[in-house]
Amino acid sequence: MRIAVDVMGGDHGSGVVIDGVKAALQAPGHERIRQILLVGNQAEIEAGLGNARHRDPRIEILHASEVLTMDEKPVVGLRKKRDCSIARAVELVKEDKADAVISPGNTGGVVAAATLKLRPLPGVDRPGIVAVIPAPDNDFVLLDAGANIECRPRHLLHYAIMGSLYSQHILGYSKPRVGLLSVGTEEIKGNELTLEAYKLCKEIDGINFIGNVEGHDLFANRVDVVVCDGFVGNVVLKTCESLAKGFFNWLKRELTKAPHRAIGAFLAQAAFRTIKRRVDPDNVGGAPLLGLNGSVMIAHGSASAMAIKNAIRITSETLSHHLTDHIRQEIAHANQELEKLSAPAPSDGGAPRPALAP
Amino acid sequence: MRIAVDVMGGDHGSGVVIDGVKAALQAPGHERIRQILLVGNQAEIEAGLGNARHRDPRIEILHASEVLTMDEKPVVGLRKKRDCSIARAVELVKEDKADAVISPGNTGGVVAAATLKLRPLPGVDRPGIVAVIPAPDNDFVLLDAGANIECRPRHLLHYAIMGSLYSQHILGYSKPRVGLLSVGTEEIKGNELTLEAYKLCKEIDGINFIGNVEGHDLFANRVDVVVCDGFVGNVVLKTCESLAKGFFNWLKRELTKAPHRAIGAFLAQAAFRTIKRRVDPDNVGGAPLLGLNGSVMIAHGSASAMAIKNAIRITSETLSHHLTDHIRQEIAHANQELEKLSAPAPSDGGAPRPALAP
Repeated sequence: MRIAVDVMGGDHGSGVVIDGVKAALQAPGHERIRQILLVGNQAEIEAGLGNARHRDPRIEILHASEVLTMDEKPVVGLRKKRDCSIARAVELVKEDKADAVISPGNTGGVVAAATLKLRPLPGVDRPGIVAVIPAPDNDFVLLDAGANIECRPRHLLHYAIMGSLYSQHILGYSKPRVGLLSVGTEEIKGNELTLEAYKLCKEIDGINFIGNVEGHDLFANRVDVVVCDGFVGNVVLKTCESLAKGFFNWLKRELTKAPHRAIGAFLAQAAFRTIKRRVDPDNVGGAPLLGLNGSVMIAHGSASAMAIKNAIRITSETLSHHLTDHIRQEIAHANQELEKLSAPAPSDGGAPRPALAP
Repeated sequence: MRIAVDVMGGDHGSGVVIDGVKAALQAPGHERIRQILLVGNQAEIEAGLGNARHRDPRIEILHASEVLTMDEKPVVGLRKKRDCSIARAVELVKEDKADAVISPGNTGGVVAAATLKLRPLPGVDRPGIVAVIPAPDNDFVLLDAGANIECRPRHLLHYAIMGSLYSQHILGYSKPRVGLLSVGTEEIKGNELTLEAYKLCKEIDGINFIGNVEGHDLFANRVDVVVCDGFVGNVVLKTCESLAKGFFNWLKRELTKAPHRAIGAFLAQAAFRTIKRRVDPDNVGGAPLLGLNGSVMIAHGSASAMAIKNAIRITSETLSHHLTDHIRQEIAHANQELEKLSAPAPSDGGAPRPALAP
C-alpha cells in the first residue's frame, strides 16, 4: 500500500511527522507499506530526513509550496492556496498515486479538501470522523467527532452504519452495540434530530441498534458505537480528553501532598502508567474520516511522532480490511431498505405510506 | 425560609428524601429554615418520619395522592395527574406558602410543572438548569444542563447571564469567565445556534464573556461558566459523571492487580478519597432551575439522603443571596441593551441598523 502524508500543518512542525514516518517504517507490519509520499516543503523535508544514503527507499517527496494554517477558513483557504500540502496529498489519492492520506493539519481543512476532491461514496451525503475512545472495559467509537456540524437524521443513520463496520473490522467487535447519544434512554427523549434519526436507525437490519444512550452509558460498557452530530461529538471527545488529563494532574497533586502518599504512588505507579498509556490520545494517533472514495486519516494537530506512527498503522489496517468497500455496500443496502419503507406499498392501491423523514 | 420538598418520585423512594430532610434540619445553617413542607403520600411520609413526638416542629406534611413517574411524558403526565406531588409542591411556591421547592423526580416533569405554574421571569423565555462541575482548580458551572433541549440564541445569552450571577453569588467568583461551548475557540467556529449566540453575548457588558471555549478548556481552569443548549449540556454533564466513575473503577481494578500496588494504594488512600469526595454528585446534591418566578432545585433522581441534605443547603443559599432578584435585574438590563442595538440609530435618519438575530 501507498500512503500520502501531509507533513506540514501540524502544531509541532514537520520534524515530528517525519520522525513518525521513519518509526512506522520500522514498526511491526511495516512490510505492508510499499511507499510513503511525504507532501510539503521539499527543502524542509530533505532536512528532516537527513542523509539521503540512509533513507528508506520507500520514502518519496512531493513538493507543495503552501500550508493551510489552523486558523484559516477551510474552503476559502483551499481556494486561495491551491498548492497547499493537504490539497496535494489528497490529490495523490484521487489520481490513484496513493491508497490513503494522513494529515495532522486543520481538521476543517482536511475534511473540506477530502470531501471536495475525493467526493462522498455513492449514497453517502457527508463523511464522518470516527474517534476511538478508551474505556475501562470496552473501547468505544464515537462519530461524528467534528466533520459535520449541522447534521440531518439520515447522516446519523449513515454514521451508525460506518461506526458499526469500523468497530467490527478494526476493533474486532462481533456484534457492536450501536446507540444514539441523547438526553435519556427512552425513545421519546431527544432533540428533533435524534428523534428522527431514531426512527431511521430502528428500521435498518444491518446494525445492532440498542436505541438511545446517554452520557452515563459511555464509560459503563453499555455501548460500542456512539452516534451523534459533529458538534456534540467534538465537544464530548474533547471534554473526555480534558477530564482525563485534568484527573491525572489532580491525582499527581494529591499524591505529592504527603510523604506516605508519594511512597504509595511509587509502589502503585504501574497501575497509573497502564491507565495513562491507554487514555493517551497519541496511542490512537488519529481519527479516520469515513464515507469518502478513499482512505483519509486525520491526526491530532498536536500529534507527536508516536501518534503519527500509530496513525500510519491504523491507516494500513483500514486499508487491508477494505473498510471503504464494506461501507459502500452497507450504505447502499440501508438506503434501499429506507426507500422500500417510504415507497407506496403495492397492496394499498398506491396510496403513499407516511414517508420517514430524510 | 420555607422549603417545599417533593418526597415522591425519586429512584430510591421517599425514605432517603425524608432522611435527607432530617439531616438538613440538624446541619450547620439549619436555623435559617423556618419550615419544611413534605409533599407526597401522607401515610408513607408519617411512617418515614417515625414517632411524631420526636419530630422537628418545623416539618409539615401536605398530602398528594399521585406521583409523576420517571417514564411519563411531562406535560401529558401533569395534565392527567393533577394531584401529583411535584405539581402540589410547586403550587406551594406559587401560593406563597413556600419560598422554594426541591424535587428529586422526573427532570422534565419538574421543569414543566415549575415553568407552567411559576412562569418565567419577565424577559426570560426559558428557564435553565445549572450544574456545578468539580474540576481540579476551579469548579465551573454548566448551563443549560437539560431543561431546554431546542435552544435559540437569545436563550443562550440569558444562560450566560444567569450562570455568571450564580457563580458570583453562590460560588463566590468575583469576575467569572463566561464561555460559549463550541467546536473551536475562534469566533467563526460553531453551529448556527452558537454563532448567533456569540454575536449577542459579546454585546452585553454585564458579563465577562471570553468567547468560545471547547471541550479541552473545561478541566484546564480556563472557564468558570460554560454556556450551551440543554441537549449538549445534559450529554456533557452525564459524560463527565460517567468518566469520573469509570476512572475510579479502572483505578481500583489496576491497584488490586498486585500486592505492592495494593500497599501503595493503601498508603495513598487519602489522595483518592479527597478527589472522590469532590467529584461525588451527591456532594452538590442538585441543580437549580433558574429563570423562574421562584426558587426551584432539581435533585438527582438517584439522590441519596446526603444529596437531599446538600440540595436543601444550596437552596437556602440561593434564597439568602436573593439570586432570583439579581437575575430579574440583569436580564432586564441585557434585554434593554439588545433592544438599543437593534433599534434605529437616531443619527442616520431612522434607517434600521442590521438587527441581531433573536
